[in-house]
Amino acid sequence: MTNPTACLLIIGNEVLSGRTRDANLQFLATRLGAIGMPLREVRVIPDVRETIIATVNEVRAKFDHVFTTGGIGPTHDDITSECVAEAFGVPWEPHPEAWARMERQYKPGEFNAARQRMATMPRGAALIDNPISTAPGFTIGNVHVMAGVPRIMQAMFDALEPSLPTGTPVQSRAVHALRLQEGRIAEGLAAIQARFPALDIGSYPYYRPEGNGVALVAKGTDPAALAAAQQAIAALVRGIGLEPVEGEPV
Amino acid sequence: MTNPTACLLIIGNEVLSGRTRDANLQFLATRLGAIGMPLREVRVIPDVRETIIATVNEVRAKFDHVFTTGGIGPTHDDITSECVAEAFGVPWEPHPEAWARMERQYKPGEFNAARQRMATMPRGAALIDNPISTAPGFTIGNVHVMAGVPRIMQAMFDALEPSLPTGTPVQSRAVHALRLQEGRIAEGLAAIQARFPALDIGSYPYYRPEGNGVALVAKGTDPAALAAAQQAIAALVRGIGLEPVEGEPV
Repeated sequence: MTNPTACLLIIGNEVLSGRTRDANLQFLATRLGAIGMPLREVRVIPDVRETIIATVNEVRAKFDHVFTTGGIGPTHDDITSECVAEAFGVPWEPHPEAWARMERQYKPGEFNAARQRMATMPRGAALIDNPISTAPGFTIGNVHVMAGVPRIMQAMFDALEPSLPTGTPVQSRAVHALRLQEGRIAEGLAAIQARFPALDIGSYPYYRPEGNGVALVAKGTDPAALAAAQQAIAALVRGIGLEPVEGEPV
Repeated sequence: MTNPTACLLIIGNEVLSGRTRDANLQFLATRLGAIGMPLREVRVIPDVRETIIATVNEVRAKFDHVFTTGGIGPTHDDITSECVAEAFGVPWEPHPEAWARMERQYKPGEFNAARQRMATMPRGAALIDNPISTAPGFTIGNVHVMAGVPRIMQAMFDALEPSLPTGTPVQSRAVHALRLQEGRIAEGLAAIQARFPALDIGSYPYYRPEGNGVALVAKGTDPAALAAAQQAIAALVRGIGLEPVEGEPV
Protein backbone atom coordinates (compact mmCIF):
# COMPACT_ATOMS: atom_id res chain seq x y z
CA MET A 1 0.00 0.00 0.00
CA THR A 2 1.28 3.43 -0.84
CA ASN A 3 0.81 6.14 1.74
CA PRO A 4 -1.10 9.28 0.79
CA THR A 5 1.13 12.35 0.43
CA ALA A 6 0.81 15.79 2.00
CA CYS A 7 2.00 19.28 1.15
CA LEU A 8 2.00 22.27 3.51
CA LEU A 9 1.56 25.87 2.35
CA ILE A 10 2.61 28.43 4.93
CA ILE A 11 1.01 31.69 3.82
CA GLY A 12 2.28 34.94 5.25
CA ASN A 13 4.70 37.81 4.69
CA GLU A 14 5.64 37.65 8.38
CA VAL A 15 7.40 34.29 7.96
CA LEU A 16 9.23 35.38 4.78
CA SER A 17 10.41 38.60 6.40
CA GLY A 18 11.81 36.80 9.43
CA ARG A 19 9.44 38.59 11.81
CA THR A 20 7.74 35.37 12.83
CA ARG A 21 9.42 32.02 13.29
CA ASP A 22 7.17 29.33 11.90
CA ALA A 23 6.09 26.76 14.44
CA ASN A 24 3.60 24.83 12.34
CA LEU A 25 5.87 22.87 10.02
CA GLN A 26 7.35 20.62 12.67
CA PHE A 27 4.01 20.00 14.37
CA LEU A 28 2.28 19.01 11.13
CA ALA A 29 5.25 17.01 9.85
CA THR A 30 5.22 14.91 13.02
CA ARG A 31 1.46 14.42 13.17
CA LEU A 32 1.12 13.63 9.46
CA GLY A 33 3.95 11.10 9.66
CA ALA A 34 2.22 9.43 12.58
CA ILE A 35 -0.98 8.85 10.56
CA GLY A 36 0.96 7.64 7.54
CA MET A 37 0.46 10.71 5.34
CA PRO A 38 4.05 11.92 5.08
CA LEU A 39 4.77 15.55 4.30
CA ARG A 40 6.53 15.68 0.93
CA GLU A 41 6.91 19.41 0.37
CA VAL A 42 6.47 22.72 2.15
CA ARG A 43 6.19 26.13 0.55
CA VAL A 44 6.25 29.46 2.31
CA ILE A 45 4.59 32.09 0.14
CA PRO A 46 3.62 35.75 0.59
CA ASP A 47 0.15 37.28 0.95
CA VAL A 48 -0.03 37.85 -2.79
CA ARG A 49 -3.24 36.89 -4.54
CA GLU A 50 -1.80 35.50 -7.79
CA THR A 51 0.91 33.56 -5.94
CA ILE A 52 -1.57 31.92 -3.55
CA ILE A 53 -4.00 30.94 -6.32
CA ALA A 54 -1.31 29.54 -8.61
CA THR A 55 0.43 27.66 -5.80
CA VAL A 56 -2.78 26.12 -4.44
CA ASN A 57 -3.68 24.88 -7.90
CA GLU A 58 -0.21 23.49 -8.52
CA VAL A 59 0.14 21.58 -5.28
CA ARG A 60 -3.43 20.28 -5.01
CA ALA A 61 -2.85 18.55 -8.36
CA LYS A 62 0.52 17.18 -7.26
CA PHE A 63 -0.15 15.91 -3.72
CA ASP A 64 -3.00 13.91 -2.20
CA HIS A 65 -3.67 16.47 0.53
CA VAL A 66 -2.73 20.12 0.98
CA PHE A 67 -2.73 21.90 4.33
CA THR A 68 -2.53 25.66 4.51
CA THR A 69 -1.72 27.79 7.55
CA GLY A 70 -2.20 31.52 7.83
CA GLY A 71 -4.21 34.29 6.23
CA ILE A 72 -7.72 33.54 7.52
CA GLY A 73 -8.14 36.38 10.02
CA PRO A 74 -10.22 39.54 9.60
CA THR A 75 -7.60 41.98 8.28
CA HIS A 76 -6.84 43.11 4.72
CA ASP A 77 -3.79 40.86 4.47
CA ASP A 78 -5.90 37.76 5.25
CA ILE A 79 -6.74 36.62 1.73
CA THR A 80 -6.24 32.86 1.85
CA SER A 81 -9.93 31.97 1.88
CA GLU A 82 -10.93 34.08 -1.12
CA CYS A 83 -7.86 32.89 -3.04
CA VAL A 84 -8.76 29.25 -2.41
CA ALA A 85 -12.28 29.94 -3.74
CA GLU A 86 -10.72 31.49 -6.83
CA ALA A 87 -8.35 28.53 -7.22
CA PHE A 88 -11.31 26.12 -7.17
CA GLY A 89 -13.37 28.41 -9.42
CA VAL A 90 -16.28 28.59 -6.98
CA PRO A 91 -18.04 31.60 -5.40
CA TRP A 92 -16.73 33.00 -2.11
CA GLU A 93 -19.86 33.45 -0.02
CA PRO A 94 -21.19 33.48 3.54
CA HIS A 95 -21.12 29.98 5.08
CA PRO A 96 -24.39 29.74 7.08
CA GLU A 97 -23.04 27.54 9.89
CA ALA A 98 -19.79 29.51 10.26
CA TRP A 99 -21.80 32.74 10.20
CA ALA A 100 -24.16 31.50 12.89
CA ARG A 101 -21.32 30.35 15.16
CA MET A 102 -19.51 33.66 14.87
CA GLU A 103 -22.58 35.86 15.18
CA ARG A 104 -23.39 34.11 18.48
CA GLN A 105 -20.06 35.03 20.05
CA TYR A 106 -20.20 38.78 19.44
CA LYS A 107 -22.30 41.43 21.15
CA PRO A 108 -24.94 43.08 18.94
CA GLY A 109 -23.22 45.35 16.39
CA GLU A 110 -19.74 43.82 16.90
CA PHE A 111 -20.03 41.15 14.19
CA ASN A 112 -18.82 43.72 11.68
CA ALA A 113 -17.81 43.48 8.02
CA ALA A 114 -14.21 42.49 8.84
CA ARG A 115 -15.33 39.66 11.11
CA GLN A 116 -17.96 38.55 8.60
CA ARG A 117 -15.10 37.89 6.16
CA MET A 118 -14.02 35.06 8.50
CA ALA A 119 -17.42 33.41 7.95
CA THR A 120 -17.15 33.82 4.16
CA MET A 121 -15.83 30.73 2.41
CA PRO A 122 -15.61 28.93 -0.91
CA ARG A 123 -18.97 27.36 -1.81
CA GLY A 124 -18.96 23.71 -0.72
CA ALA A 125 -16.48 24.20 2.13
CA ALA A 126 -16.79 21.80 5.10
CA LEU A 127 -15.94 23.46 8.40
CA ILE A 128 -12.94 22.62 10.57
CA ASP A 129 -13.89 23.37 14.18
CA ASN A 130 -11.98 26.00 16.12
CA PRO A 131 -12.45 25.38 19.84
CA ILE A 132 -10.05 28.22 20.73
CA SER A 133 -11.44 31.30 18.99
CA THR A 134 -14.58 30.12 17.13
CA ALA A 135 -13.76 31.28 13.56
CA PRO A 136 -13.55 27.95 11.72
CA GLY A 137 -11.12 26.66 9.14
CA PHE A 138 -12.45 24.62 6.25
CA THR A 139 -11.82 21.82 3.81
CA ILE A 140 -12.61 22.06 0.12
CA GLY A 141 -11.62 19.17 -2.12
CA ASN A 142 -8.22 17.99 -0.89
CA VAL A 143 -7.26 21.39 0.59
CA HIS A 144 -7.47 22.00 4.34
CA VAL A 145 -7.36 25.66 5.32
CA MET A 146 -6.22 26.38 8.88
CA ALA A 147 -5.18 29.31 11.06
CA GLY A 148 -1.57 30.45 11.35
CA VAL A 149 -1.51 30.97 15.13
CA PRO A 150 0.03 27.68 16.34
CA ARG A 151 -2.37 27.11 19.25
CA ILE A 152 -5.39 27.54 16.98
CA MET A 153 -3.86 25.56 14.11
CA GLN A 154 -3.11 22.66 16.46
CA ALA A 155 -6.68 22.62 17.79
CA MET A 156 -8.00 22.70 14.22
CA PHE A 157 -5.75 19.79 13.23
CA ASP A 158 -6.98 17.81 16.23
CA ALA A 159 -10.53 18.41 14.99
CA LEU A 160 -9.68 17.56 11.38
CA GLU A 161 -7.51 14.50 11.94
CA PRO A 162 -10.28 11.88 12.41
CA SER A 163 -11.65 12.69 8.94
CA LEU A 164 -8.30 12.33 7.16
CA PRO A 165 -7.37 9.15 5.31
CA THR A 166 -4.49 7.31 6.92
CA GLY A 167 -1.64 5.15 5.74
CA THR A 168 0.96 3.05 7.46
CA PRO A 169 2.58 5.16 10.18
CA VAL A 170 6.10 6.33 9.46
CA GLN A 171 8.34 5.18 12.31
CA SER A 172 11.94 5.90 13.07
CA ARG A 173 14.85 4.06 14.69
CA ALA A 174 17.99 5.93 15.59
CA VAL A 175 21.51 5.21 16.74
CA HIS A 176 23.93 7.90 17.78
CA ALA A 177 27.51 8.05 18.91
CA LEU A 178 29.72 10.70 20.44
CA ARG A 179 32.92 11.51 18.53
CA LEU A 180 31.51 9.86 15.42
CA GLN A 181 32.41 11.64 12.17
CA GLU A 182 30.16 11.17 9.15
CA GLY A 183 33.09 10.75 6.80
CA ARG A 184 34.21 7.60 8.62
CA ILE A 185 30.98 5.66 8.17
CA ALA A 186 29.59 7.18 4.98
CA GLU A 187 30.52 4.25 2.78
CA GLY A 188 29.13 1.64 5.17
CA LEU A 189 25.96 3.65 5.66
CA ALA A 190 25.41 3.86 1.91
CA ALA A 191 25.67 0.07 1.77
CA ILE A 192 23.03 -0.25 4.51
CA GLN A 193 20.76 2.19 2.64
CA ALA A 194 21.20 0.01 -0.47
CA ARG A 195 20.16 -3.07 1.52
CA PHE A 196 16.99 -1.33 2.72
CA PRO A 197 15.75 0.69 -0.25
CA ALA A 198 12.27 1.18 1.26
CA LEU A 199 13.75 3.04 4.24
CA ASP A 200 15.13 6.58 4.33
CA ILE A 201 18.43 6.47 6.18
CA GLY A 202 19.82 9.84 7.20
CA SER A 203 22.95 11.05 8.94
CA TYR A 204 22.75 14.15 11.15
CA PRO A 205 25.75 15.66 12.93
CA TYR A 206 25.10 17.24 16.29
CA TYR A 207 27.11 19.80 18.24
CA ARG A 208 26.47 19.91 21.97
CA PRO A 209 28.25 21.00 25.09
CA GLU A 210 28.58 17.31 26.10
CA GLY A 211 30.38 16.63 22.85
CA ASN A 212 29.88 16.36 19.11
CA GLY A 213 28.62 13.30 17.33
CA VAL A 214 26.31 12.00 14.66
CA ALA A 215 22.78 10.59 14.80
CA LEU A 216 21.95 7.95 12.22
CA VAL A 217 18.24 7.66 11.65
CA ALA A 218 16.19 5.14 9.67
CA LYS A 219 12.62 6.07 8.79
CA GLY A 220 9.98 3.94 7.16
CA THR A 221 6.80 1.96 7.51
CA ASP A 222 8.21 -1.59 7.91
CA PRO A 223 9.06 -2.33 11.55
CA ALA A 224 11.11 -5.44 10.72
CA ALA A 225 13.23 -3.57 8.19
CA LEU A 226 13.66 -0.72 10.67
CA ALA A 227 14.88 -3.05 13.40
CA ALA A 228 17.30 -4.78 11.04
CA ALA A 229 18.65 -1.47 9.73
CA GLN A 230 19.13 -0.19 13.26
CA GLN A 231 21.15 -3.31 14.13
CA ALA A 232 23.27 -2.92 11.02
CA ILE A 233 23.93 0.74 11.81
CA ALA A 234 24.92 -0.07 15.38
CA ALA A 235 27.32 -2.74 14.10
CA LEU A 236 28.83 -0.24 11.66
CA VAL A 237 29.54 2.20 14.50
CA ARG A 238 30.95 -0.55 16.71
CA GLY A 239 33.14 -1.61 13.79
CA ILE A 240 35.08 1.65 13.94
CA GLY A 241 35.59 1.36 17.68
CA LEU A 242 32.85 3.65 18.96
CA GLU A 243 29.95 2.88 21.27
CA PRO A 244 26.54 3.14 19.53
CA VAL A 245 23.71 4.43 21.70
CA GLU A 246 20.17 3.52 20.77
CA GLY A 247 17.82 6.41 20.05
CA GLU A 248 18.30 10.08 19.30
CA PRO A 249 20.64 12.18 21.44
CA VAL A 250 18.63 13.89 24.17
CA MET B 1 14.85 50.91 -7.94
CA THR B 2 13.47 47.43 -7.57
CA ASN B 3 15.11 45.20 -5.02
CA PRO B 4 16.55 41.86 -6.15
CA THR B 5 14.49 38.86 -4.99
CA ALA B 6 15.57 35.74 -3.15
CA CYS B 7 14.27 32.18 -2.79
CA LEU B 8 15.40 29.65 -0.19
CA LEU B 9 15.45 25.89 -0.80
CA ILE B 10 15.69 23.84 2.36
CA ILE B 11 16.79 20.40 1.26
CA GLY B 12 16.37 17.48 3.62
CA ASN B 13 14.10 14.64 4.66
CA GLU B 14 14.80 15.48 8.30
CA VAL B 15 12.89 18.77 8.10
CA LEU B 16 9.94 17.23 6.25
CA SER B 17 9.69 14.37 8.75
CA GLY B 18 9.66 16.73 11.72
CA ARG B 19 12.88 15.27 13.14
CA THR B 20 14.72 18.56 12.75
CA ARG B 21 13.27 22.00 13.32
CA ASP B 22 14.59 24.33 10.65
CA ALA B 23 16.58 27.24 12.03
CA ASN B 24 17.85 28.69 8.76
CA LEU B 25 14.73 30.32 7.34
CA GLN B 26 14.44 33.03 9.95
CA PHE B 27 18.17 33.81 9.92
CA LEU B 28 18.31 34.17 6.14
CA ALA B 29 15.00 36.04 5.93
CA THR B 30 16.30 38.64 8.37
CA ARG B 31 19.75 39.00 6.81
CA LEU B 32 18.42 39.14 3.24
CA GLY B 33 15.84 41.78 4.20
CA ALA B 34 18.62 43.85 5.76
CA ILE B 35 20.62 43.94 2.50
CA GLY B 36 17.53 44.70 0.45
CA MET B 37 17.16 41.30 -1.20
CA PRO B 38 13.83 40.18 0.32
CA LEU B 39 12.99 36.51 0.54
CA ARG B 40 9.97 35.87 -1.66
CA GLU B 41 9.51 32.12 -1.36
CA VAL B 42 10.81 29.14 0.59
CA ARG B 43 10.51 25.51 -0.37
CA VAL B 44 11.33 22.53 1.78
CA ILE B 45 12.00 19.51 -0.41
CA PRO B 46 13.21 15.96 0.21
CA ASP B 47 16.55 14.37 -0.70
CA VAL B 48 15.13 13.15 -4.00
CA ARG B 49 17.24 13.68 -7.09
CA GLU B 50 14.51 14.55 -9.59
CA THR B 51 12.78 16.89 -7.12
CA ILE B 52 15.97 18.80 -6.35
CA ILE B 53 16.94 19.21 -10.01
CA ALA B 54 13.47 20.32 -11.13
CA THR B 55 13.04 22.71 -8.21
CA VAL B 56 16.47 24.33 -8.64
CA ASN B 57 15.74 24.93 -12.30
CA GLU B 58 12.28 26.32 -11.61
CA VAL B 59 13.30 28.76 -8.92
CA ARG B 60 16.58 29.96 -10.42
CA ALA B 61 14.56 31.13 -13.43
CA LYS B 62 11.93 32.78 -11.25
CA PHE B 63 14.01 34.62 -8.61
CA ASP B 64 17.15 36.72 -8.83
CA HIS B 65 19.01 34.63 -6.26
CA VAL B 66 18.51 31.16 -4.82
CA PHE B 67 20.00 29.98 -1.56
CA THR B 68 20.05 26.29 -0.68
CA THR B 69 20.70 24.76 2.72
CA GLY B 70 21.39 21.11 3.42
CA GLY B 71 22.65 18.04 1.61
CA ILE B 72 26.34 18.86 1.11
CA GLY B 73 27.88 16.48 3.65
CA PRO B 74 29.72 13.21 2.92
CA THR B 75 26.89 10.67 3.27
CA HIS B 76 24.72 8.98 0.64
CA ASP B 77 21.77 11.31 1.36
CA ASP B 78 23.88 14.40 0.61
CA ILE B 79 23.08 14.87 -3.06
CA THR B 80 22.54 18.62 -3.40
CA SER B 81 25.85 19.36 -5.08
CA GLU B 82 25.55 16.73 -7.83
CA CYS B 83 21.91 17.69 -8.42
CA VAL B 84 22.84 21.36 -8.86
CA ALA B 85 25.47 20.32 -11.43
CA GLU B 86 22.81 18.30 -13.24
CA ALA B 87 20.39 21.26 -13.09
CA PHE B 88 22.99 23.51 -14.71
CA GLY B 89 23.98 20.82 -17.21
CA VAL B 90 27.66 20.93 -16.25
CA PRO B 91 30.04 18.18 -15.10
CA TRP B 92 30.33 17.39 -11.39
CA GLU B 93 34.06 17.18 -10.79
CA PRO B 94 36.79 17.72 -8.19
CA HIS B 95 37.26 21.42 -7.40
CA PRO B 96 41.05 21.88 -7.04
CA GLU B 97 40.96 24.56 -4.35
CA ALA B 98 38.25 22.82 -2.30
CA TRP B 99 40.17 19.55 -2.67
CA ALA B 100 43.42 21.15 -1.48
CA ARG B 101 41.76 22.76 1.54
CA MET B 102 40.14 19.53 2.61
CA GLU B 103 43.13 17.29 1.96
CA ARG B 104 45.19 19.53 4.25
CA GLN B 105 42.91 19.05 7.20
CA TYR B 106 42.91 15.23 7.25
CA LYS B 107 45.63 12.84 8.33
CA PRO B 108 47.12 10.74 5.53
CA GLY B 109 44.59 8.15 4.40
CA GLU B 110 41.62 9.87 6.05
CA PHE B 111 40.59 12.02 3.08
CA ASN B 112 38.54 9.10 1.81
CA ALA B 113 36.05 8.76 -1.05
CA ALA B 114 33.12 10.03 1.04
CA ARG B 115 34.98 13.15 2.11
CA GLN B 116 36.24 13.71 -1.43
CA ARG B 117 32.58 14.06 -2.50
CA MET B 118 32.50 17.28 -0.45
CA ALA B 119 35.28 18.68 -2.68
CA THR B 120 33.42 17.65 -5.84
CA MET B 121 31.35 20.44 -7.37
CA PRO B 122 29.67 21.66 -10.52
CA ARG B 123 32.25 22.92 -13.04
CA GLY B 124 32.56 26.70 -12.67
CA ALA B 125 31.56 26.80 -8.99
CA ALA B 126 33.03 29.65 -6.91
CA LEU B 127 33.76 28.60 -3.32
CA ILE B 128 31.93 29.91 -0.27
CA ASP B 129 34.37 29.76 2.65
CA ASN B 130 33.57 27.57 5.64
CA PRO B 131 35.59 28.79 8.63
CA ILE B 132 33.90 26.25 10.94
CA SER B 133 34.52 22.87 9.32
CA THR B 134 36.52 23.60 6.12
CA ALA B 135 34.29 21.88 3.51
CA PRO B 136 33.19 24.85 1.39
CA GLY B 137 29.83 25.78 -0.06
CA PHE B 138 29.72 27.23 -3.54
CA THR B 139 28.00 29.62 -5.91
CA ILE B 140 27.12 28.72 -9.48
CA GLY B 141 25.18 31.23 -11.55
CA ASN B 142 22.58 32.72 -9.21
CA VAL B 143 22.48 29.67 -6.90
CA HIS B 144 24.30 29.69 -3.56
CA VAL B 145 24.76 26.25 -2.02
CA MET B 146 25.28 26.19 1.75
CA ALA B 147 25.40 23.72 4.63
CA GLY B 148 22.31 22.78 6.63
CA VAL B 149 23.89 22.93 10.10
CA PRO B 150 22.90 26.42 11.27
CA ARG B 151 26.28 27.38 12.73
CA ILE B 152 28.05 26.46 9.50
CA MET B 153 25.37 27.99 7.27
CA GLN B 154 25.60 31.27 9.17
CA ALA B 155 29.38 31.40 8.82
CA MET B 156 29.04 30.67 5.10
CA PHE B 157 26.48 33.44 4.69
CA ASP B 158 28.80 35.86 6.49
CA ALA B 159 31.49 34.92 3.97
CA LEU B 160 29.15 35.16 0.99
CA GLU B 161 27.32 38.38 1.89
CA PRO B 162 29.93 40.92 0.66
CA SER B 163 29.71 39.48 -2.86
CA LEU B 164 25.90 39.67 -3.06
CA PRO B 165 24.16 42.50 -4.84
CA THR B 166 22.17 44.70 -2.50
CA GLY B 167 19.01 46.76 -2.69
CA THR B 168 17.31 49.21 -0.41
CA PRO B 169 17.12 47.66 3.06
CA VAL B 170 13.67 46.52 4.14
CA GLN B 171 12.82 48.22 7.42
CA SER B 172 9.92 47.77 9.77
CA ARG B 173 7.92 49.98 12.12
CA ALA B 174 5.54 48.41 14.60
CA VAL B 175 2.82 49.43 16.99
CA HIS B 176 1.18 47.05 19.42
CA ALA B 177 -1.56 47.23 21.98
CA LEU B 178 -2.80 44.97 24.73
CA ARG B 179 -6.49 43.97 24.55
CA LEU B 180 -6.61 45.01 20.90
CA GLN B 181 -8.74 42.75 18.70
CA GLU B 182 -8.01 42.61 14.98
CA GLY B 183 -11.68 42.75 14.06
CA ARG B 184 -12.06 46.19 15.64
CA ILE B 185 -9.39 47.92 13.54
CA ALA B 186 -9.44 45.82 10.36
CA GLU B 187 -11.34 48.37 8.30
CA GLY B 188 -9.17 51.30 9.39
CA LEU B 189 -6.01 49.27 8.81
CA ALA B 190 -7.12 48.41 5.28
CA ALA B 191 -7.55 52.13 4.61
CA ILE B 192 -4.01 52.80 5.86
CA GLN B 193 -2.66 50.00 3.64
CA ALA B 194 -4.48 51.64 0.71
CA ARG B 195 -2.79 54.98 1.51
CA PHE B 196 0.65 53.33 1.51
CA PRO B 197 0.57 50.79 -1.32
CA ALA B 198 4.38 50.45 -1.39
CA LEU B 199 4.40 49.15 2.21
CA ASP B 200 3.32 45.75 3.50
CA ILE B 201 1.13 46.29 6.52
CA GLY B 202 0.43 43.21 8.59
CA SER B 203 -1.60 42.42 11.68
CA TYR B 204 -0.34 39.74 14.09
CA PRO B 205 -2.23 38.68 17.20
CA TYR B 206 -0.15 37.65 20.19
CA TYR B 207 -1.03 35.55 23.20
CA ARG B 208 1.15 36.05 26.26
CA PRO B 209 0.94 35.57 29.98
CA GLU B 210 0.93 39.39 30.39
CA GLY B 211 -2.12 39.59 28.16
CA ASN B 212 -3.30 39.19 24.60
CA GLY B 213 -3.03 41.85 21.94
CA VAL B 214 -2.16 42.59 18.36
CA ALA B 215 1.04 43.87 16.74
CA LEU B 216 0.59 45.99 13.64
CA VAL B 217 3.69 46.04 11.48
CA ALA B 218 4.60 48.11 8.44
CA LYS B 219 7.50 46.91 6.27
CA GLY B 220 9.08 48.63 3.34
CA THR B 221 12.04 50.52 1.96
CA ASP B 222 10.81 54.14 2.30
CA PRO B 223 11.57 55.52 5.78
CA ALA B 224 9.23 58.52 5.41
CA ALA B 225 6.30 56.34 4.38
CA LEU B 226 7.09 53.94 7.23
CA ALA B 227 7.07 56.76 9.79
CA ALA B 228 3.81 58.16 8.43
CA ALA B 229 2.16 54.72 8.42
CA GLN B 230 3.28 54.08 11.97
CA GLN B 231 1.72 57.37 13.09
CA ALA B 232 -1.52 56.55 11.29
CA ILE B 233 -1.65 53.10 12.90
CA ALA B 234 -1.04 54.55 16.37
CA ALA B 235 -3.86 57.06 15.79
CA LEU B 236 -6.16 54.22 14.70
CA VAL B 237 -5.49 52.32 17.93
CA ARG B 238 -5.94 55.44 20.04
CA GLY B 239 -9.21 56.08 18.21
CA ILE B 240 -10.78 52.97 19.72
CA GLY B 241 -9.63 53.93 23.20
CA LEU B 242 -6.53 51.76 23.55
CA GLU B 243 -2.95 52.81 24.23
CA PRO B 244 -0.60 52.15 21.28
CA VAL B 245 2.94 51.10 22.20
CA GLU B 246 5.70 51.72 19.71
CA GLY B 247 7.63 48.67 18.56
CA GLU B 248 7.03 44.94 18.71
CA PRO B 249 5.92 43.33 21.97
CA VAL B 250 8.96 42.01 23.82
